[in-house]
Amino acid sequence: MTQGVMEQQLADTASSTSTSATTKYVYFFGGGQADGNGRMKDTLGGKGAGLAEMTNAGLPVPPGFTIQTESCREYMRGQLNPQMDAEMHAALERLERMQGQKLGAGDNPLLVSVRSGAKFSMPGMMDTILNLGLNDNAVEALAKRSNNPRFAYDSYRRLIQMFGDVVLDIPKKKFEHIFDSVKEREKAHYDYELQPAALKDIIAEYKKLVKKETGKEFPQNPLEQLSAARDAVFRSWQNERAKTYRRINHIDDWLGTAVNVQAMVFGNLGDNSGTGVGFTRNPATGERIFFGEYLMNAQGEDVVSGVRTPMPISELEKAMPKVYDQLRTITWKMEKHYRDMQDFEFTIQDGKLYMLQTRNGKRTGLAAVRVAIDMVREGLITQEEAIFRVEPNQLYDFLVPRLDEKGAKVEVLATGLPASPGAAVGQIVFTAEDAVKHHHKGDYTSIILVRGETTPEDIGGMEVASGILTSRGGMTSHAAVVTRGMGKCCVAGAGECTVDENRKELRVKGKTFRQGDWISLDGTTGRVIEGKLKTIPAQPDDPDLVRFMGWADPVRKLRIRANADVPRDAKQARLFGAEGIGLCRTEHMFFAEGRIEHVRAMILAHTEQERRAALKHLLPMQRQDFIGLFKSMESLPVTIRLLDPPLHEFLPQREELLVEIQHLEDTKPRSPKLKELRVLLARVQELHEVNPMLGLRGCRLGIAFPEITEMQARAILEAAVNVKNHGGDPHLEIMIPLIGSIEEMRNQSAVVKRIAAQVFKEKGTTVDFMVGTMIELPRAALTADQIAEEAEFFSFGTNDLTQTTFGISRDDINHFLPAYLKAGIFKQDPFATLDQAGVGSLVKTAVAKGRNTRPTLKVGICGEHGGDPESVKFCHKIGLNYVSCSPFRLLTARLAAAQAALQEKQTGPDVHSGTC
Amino acid sequence: MTQGVMEQQLADTASSTSTSATTKYVYFFGGGQADGNGRMKDTLGGKGAGLAEMTNAGLPVPPGFTIQTESCREYMRGQLNPQMDAEMHAALERLERMQGQKLGAGDNPLLVSVRSGAKFSMPGMMDTILNLGLNDNAVEALAKRSNNPRFAYDSYRRLIQMFGDVVLDIPKKKFEHIFDSVKEREKAHYDYELQPAALKDIIAEYKKLVKKETGKEFPQNPLEQLSAARDAVFRSWQNERAKTYRRINHIDDWLGTAVNVQAMVFGNLGDNSGTGVGFTRNPATGERIFFGEYLMNAQGEDVVSGVRTPMPISELEKAMPKVYDQLRTITWKMEKHYRDMQDFEFTIQDGKLYMLQTRNGKRTGLAAVRVAIDMVREGLITQEEAIFRVEPNQLYDFLVPRLDEKGAKVEVLATGLPASPGAAVGQIVFTAEDAVKHHHKGDYTSIILVRGETTPEDIGGMEVASGILTSRGGMTSHAAVVTRGMGKCCVAGAGECTVDENRKELRVKGKTFRQGDWISLDGTTGRVIEGKLKTIPAQPDDPDLVRFMGWADPVRKLRIRANADVPRDAKQARLFGAEGIGLCRTEHMFFAEGRIEHVRAMILAHTEQERRAALKHLLPMQRQDFIGLFKSMESLPVTIRLLDPPLHEFLPQREELLVEIQHLEDTKPRSPKLKELRVLLARVQELHEVNPMLGLRGCRLGIAFPEITEMQARAILEAAVNVKNHGGDPHLEIMIPLIGSIEEMRNQSAVVKRIAAQVFKEKGTTVDFMVGTMIELPRAALTADQIAEEAEFFSFGTNDLTQTTFGISRDDINHFLPAYLKAGIFKQDPFATLDQAGVGSLVKTAVAKGRNTRPTLKVGICGEHGGDPESVKFCHKIGLNYVSCSPFRLLTARLAAAQAALQEKQTGPDVHSGTC
Repeated sequence: MTQGVMEQQLADTASSTSTSATTKYVYFFGGGQADGNGRMKDTLGGKGAGLAEMTNAGLPVPPGFTIQTESCREYMRGQLNPQMDAEMHAALERLERMQGQKLGAGDNPLLVSVRSGAKFSMPGMMDTILNLGLNDNAVEALAKRSNNPRFAYDSYRRLIQMFGDVVLDIPKKKFEHIFDSVKEREKAHYDYELQPAALKDIIAEYKKLVKKETGKEFPQNPLEQLSAARDAVFRSWQNERAKTYRRINHIDDWLGTAVNVQAMVFGNLGDNSGTGVGFTRNPATGERIFFGEYLMNAQGEDVVSGVRTPMPISELEKAMPKVYDQLRTITWKMEKHYRDMQDFEFTIQDGKLYMLQTRNGKRTGLAAVRVAIDMVREGLITQEEAIFRVEPNQLYDFLVPRLDEKGAKVEVLATGLPASPGAAVGQIVFTAEDAVKHHHKGDYTSIILVRGETTPEDIGGMEVASGILTSRGGMTSHAAVVTRGMGKCCVAGAGECTVDENRKELRVKGKTFRQGDWISLDGTTGRVIEGKLKTIPAQPDDPDLVRFMGWADPVRKLRIRANADVPRDAKQARLFGAEGIGLCRTEHMFFAEGRIEHVRAMILAHTEQERRAALKHLLPMQRQDFIGLFKSMESLPVTIRLLDPPLHEFLPQREELLVEIQHLEDTKPRSPKLKELRVLLARVQELHEVNPMLGLRGCRLGIAFPEITEMQARAILEAAVNVKNHGGDPHLEIMIPLIGSIEEMRNQSAVVKRIAAQVFKEKGTTVDFMVGTMIELPRAALTADQIAEEAEFFSFGTNDLTQTTFGISRDDINHFLPAYLKAGIFKQDPFATLDQAGVGSLVKTAVAKGRNTRPTLKVGICGEHGGDPESVKFCHKIGLNYVSCSPFRLLTARLAAAQAALQEKQTGPDVHSGTC
Repeated sequence: MTQGVMEQQLADTASSTSTSATTKYVYFFGGGQADGNGRMKDTLGGKGAGLAEMTNAGLPVPPGFTIQTESCREYMRGQLNPQMDAEMHAALERLERMQGQKLGAGDNPLLVSVRSGAKFSMPGMMDTILNLGLNDNAVEALAKRSNNPRFAYDSYRRLIQMFGDVVLDIPKKKFEHIFDSVKEREKAHYDYELQPAALKDIIAEYKKLVKKETGKEFPQNPLEQLSAARDAVFRSWQNERAKTYRRINHIDDWLGTAVNVQAMVFGNLGDNSGTGVGFTRNPATGERIFFGEYLMNAQGEDVVSGVRTPMPISELEKAMPKVYDQLRTITWKMEKHYRDMQDFEFTIQDGKLYMLQTRNGKRTGLAAVRVAIDMVREGLITQEEAIFRVEPNQLYDFLVPRLDEKGAKVEVLATGLPASPGAAVGQIVFTAEDAVKHHHKGDYTSIILVRGETTPEDIGGMEVASGILTSRGGMTSHAAVVTRGMGKCCVAGAGECTVDENRKELRVKGKTFRQGDWISLDGTTGRVIEGKLKTIPAQPDDPDLVRFMGWADPVRKLRIRANADVPRDAKQARLFGAEGIGLCRTEHMFFAEGRIEHVRAMILAHTEQERRAALKHLLPMQRQDFIGLFKSMESLPVTIRLLDPPLHEFLPQREELLVEIQHLEDTKPRSPKLKELRVLLARVQELHEVNPMLGLRGCRLGIAFPEITEMQARAILEAAVNVKNHGGDPHLEIMIPLIGSIEEMRNQSAVVKRIAAQVFKEKGTTVDFMVGTMIELPRAALTADQIAEEAEFFSFGTNDLTQTTFGISRDDINHFLPAYLKAGIFKQDPFATLDQAGVGSLVKTAVAKGRNTRPTLKVGICGEHGGDPESVKFCHKIGLNYVSCSPFRLLTARLAAAQAALQEKQTGPDVHSGTC
């Protein structure tokens, strides 16, 4: 997006220099035609161009005019052209004629809104004034005409307040103080309880305040109001909020804003007036059904506030058949004009329909696919266009169940982070062991694992659970990352929940939940809900989805692989379209039942011999895993990463041991267990690291303990030979993790090749295999030319590369990420979307250097970024061969890759900026 | 060095292609002249060129000949030229004539050694055969002539064993097995106890073994022995050891080795023979005194083995006045020839002096400076040459005390890592508190702090101690780094010591030492010595040193600054020649007495208000520190880094709290302390990080808690104004740590500038100041062009940059560094010497990008590398403005910078390879 913004800025700079001496300052719209059009965002701003476009499309938009951005620039330079004033007055007169009203005068006074509108949307950054034109006379006319004095006086007091704040720079607090005093005097709880008399008192006080603060009366002359409001909008372009927003979003300070002056319409002028919102199709399902709701004699805020219950739009057909027909005709026309489903707002004033706003409607993933397919069928859009009509992330909706809240009582207990989307309904347990136990026992049909935070030891429990709830940890905590990989629902960091793992209790909102109690989780919103809701299952084989992907897949150039550690995941990955496995993390196999004790024996070994004995037990198990993987992937490539995590991850936690030992010393000092625990602690202390992420892990393990690499290489290669001997065709790629130098690569590659030679000799068969590496350290990227001498492929581990490039631990970022996002230092979490300026530049460097040494080098990515659309597009742009992501991100990655390829086809490839 | 090797390889490749058809294969040396000379390393190898050089210089070198490297290359190609054989035989005949001996024949048989010798030294990688020429006849002649049958038979059995191993490829073990059986039979403890009869038995068994293994007899023909040995040396070029060594050291596999055949001489042929070693000057002090020792009727190994006590060389003058005179004349001549102090070996055979080896002698730093100055005075070398005659690291010797072991009983208790050089003798204590207590009390005149490992909390105790001993931790552990900074002696990771901090006991070698016991530490060797040795104090004002630095300083271009946190360090730094402070770590000020409680209050605060209240207490203390610093540095620049470490470093350790709480729960569950500790624990848990190095620290602290930056900026600026108002001239540079993006830099720079404006307004005075940043993250280096928009200077924090570029934690590297050094993956600890390929390339990129944006950007380095000579030379090469290092590295850095500048002057600047 940033890039897009910058390109448009360049275009704009070019066009703005051509402002001629005979500049047209004011652009009228109304009565079916406009001076401007939708493409004139540079001149009219986004809003102004939209109003012109809608008017030209024949929509009944309240008329008005736009003062163009050049005026704002002139204002900044202190050279406002008097011609603009003249044009503005002419436009106002035209507006008055068209409406048969006069600004702030007569029985039926014209009121207008004055709004900013820059080229790029800057929501809430600049100022707006409504009800402009009201004064002591006009307010009485409005009261009479609307037959609603409360509304009229409230509108007037709002004008004075907004005008006082925005135009006259009077502190808002002073108005609020007056308002609150009167409310207190009147014993009113809500604003709308204030009666006309009280509102009149407030108006009087407000006017006094204006006099006191500025030395002048609140202007009764509507034209004076208008000029002052216009200039205030110009000034608001330069306020601190707006400047900060532009800096963060790389928007040029000299663009300026346009000012839109538009007749106000009211839906609350009687029973012949009303207001509503709607969609041209169902935004939840995509069905082609006119969809919306309205209220008669009401203002827009009444529809959304929930004070009154709105009516379904179908009722309007009976109440006002003509208006309803007009609305249907207009909205279909809008859909045709904008060639997309529309989300619109309308007001009926005295029986006359006005369209206030229309825009492309937000929709669910299911709806997006359905609408895209329907529109192609209807001839509205092409297949290529359809591919852009679905946000890649939305496809997740097809892969996970959703809560079915229809008619259910939804009691939200807490809201945590939406760490992994989908829904889960189940009985709670508090330990991984309990989860496994009840899963095997079969007495709980669905299990939700509730933890303070999860650790790698919990993996068994997480596998059998339907969903995970944690009270601590962020979007990239262990629970979040692992569940996203599993496509399982997770609500993380629900701080309102107290999880007492000792007592096996979940306490929240004064309630206590115990093992076996039912809760429901919504991983898409982060809600934790009491009790047992129904769910709507996932629809990965939805025929619309299948057709849609059938359009997208042939377009893309990137191959899409999955991260999968066990045959079950591999099968699922193939179901979702994986073209290989890009990352099999062998350590996940180590945590399985019946293995962890051998892993621990290996770690606790004091000699190489003891270590080899323990490894011997693991060998056949690992081999069996790999046989399963190779079989399920048939002849697709499978990249297997050797052991990566630090060894202490497989041991009990140091703190727990220390506390347990202290407790035994205090209570049972003769317990034989004490001695045992002390021995264990000694080894845990030995292995303890201050910064485990930067410690003895990855290839460093294999270099310090070559027998581990030997065992793993043997298991992989024996498995491949076995599968080949049974008629299979395995394509294996052995990946050495955490390489930082060619020397490390040479060392580990030599071990693998030596074992391969042994295995092939023993078995009398050979299989093809490649040895490559993760590029996940800056030094690996910087010396990629050297590393490619030995490595036959690169796979970017962008999680670790992001950690080291930024010097930020993924486990600890939540200590300051909120402050960073708030201050605009990060636009997004760099672990979610690849940082192109820093991490991305290292990736580009490494690709260039690597291919320079080895032109056929196969290059992919296997971090979490492999499933993030923006990052996938970056990977396409810099020429990677594939991305690998969790099975549940495969659809997203496939679509993002197709969009990237199509975009390139349409606009031509980016020129790469070389190696740095 | 690597670069030097590669350049020479290129030169060599060029020259080796010019090998003409009339190649000369064999180069003779002896009788005062040689065919080759010292510059012919390509052809003759290092050793061969050296022998030629010594011969040409008129030294009485045992004569012989060198078969040049081209033969080895021919051997590798399987195309050995018969001409070489012919030349070899001719050379052998010449040798026999010169010696009046015949190879392996007659009463006085000629014996030769056959040794490899490649262009680059590859110590121990290839094979050597001694005593070649011995056979069943010659051994008897040797026995007779030497009147030492034991020696003769032992020489013969050694020949068969070496020949069997190297030439005939018979496993060494089989020889050793025979040898050991006979030894057992004879009940001999030591090899030299074997009598001639037993040795003859061994020879017989050896010969049988050769027959059994090869089907042939051990060759009795000396010429056959010679050819076979020569070929074996050629083959040894290709053994695995040698190949690995070459790979690691980037030596071309096709260079090949030369073969040196040299007459053997024996110092044990009777009372008219002898052997010795010596130096032309005193290697400890540099005094111009002939220095050495010798033994009559002995072999070289007898002198070094310590079985017999050698005599001082002055005795030789009385015993063999002629030989002594000749030796003195020769060695002075050698010194003149090589223009440096010589370390030599000689043998006297039958009254005739032979020089076996001469090389530039190793010496202490004190001696190096003294010798360099003397040699300039003597007209032997120029001042510029003198500057290169001292290793920069050696200057450390002047700055620290040394143990005076003369006449002392030295009982070594353990040997740990020589973490910080120098010596310390003192009474031991086991906690920082005890150290401080006894320091204040004054009852211990010198204190040694003994810990398992030190933490930042120990800093107070470390400050008052003379030396530190730890049982855990490596060369870059907290104890090591901090003591090196203080110039204090430290022995770290002395694993043999058990430090029981609870009982306050040090247990080692079955002895127990308690508080108040005396020990002595040698930080230069890592020795822990029982009792109270004397020390020789540091000599920073040694007149020779002052003169020497007076030559070096004017030459260098790099400015040299010091890392100093408190006025005391700053004063010391100026004494050692600092031209500014490059790094003042403000957090060190936080640990001082009377402050840590306010720091903790700040951290434990729940609201910004509470935090500000705590900070208010710290402000005047910090201000006072800075006033002291500015005063002691006068108008030199002072770079002050804002708070950097994670907050939990200032709190008690989590594990200790957990255990203490458990213990109280078990024993005193109603203790009010329990509640207090639980509150503390909760905050410690909140702040706990998995990878603190990558967590909430550096500028992230200042962004999350701007009030910390505000307090520090205020303290700095108020101090500067205060000093200026008192007539001072402070030059301050405020440094924001751990910047990874321009957004962070903008954020913190704005805070500092806002506070500056406030302070200047309040005080009515302004001071100049700069705001810059540490570049210590890869992302900062990669986006340095952006960061330089805001940063007015860069200081490379290469400790952290090394950590993140490699993905290696300095605290944890010791888990695998030994394996890495052993496998040749690292040539050196990257935290000690800057990695130029990875970290260095980021530094270069950042300098180029930064100066591109801001051509006047001041750029320095402030990591540990700032005091490492090789790294300092790199900093010079890439054009930094200054390096900053611990005060005790200042001399080293000054000299290294001078050498770099001089080198550049002599060879011209390196061509930089651009930004990447």
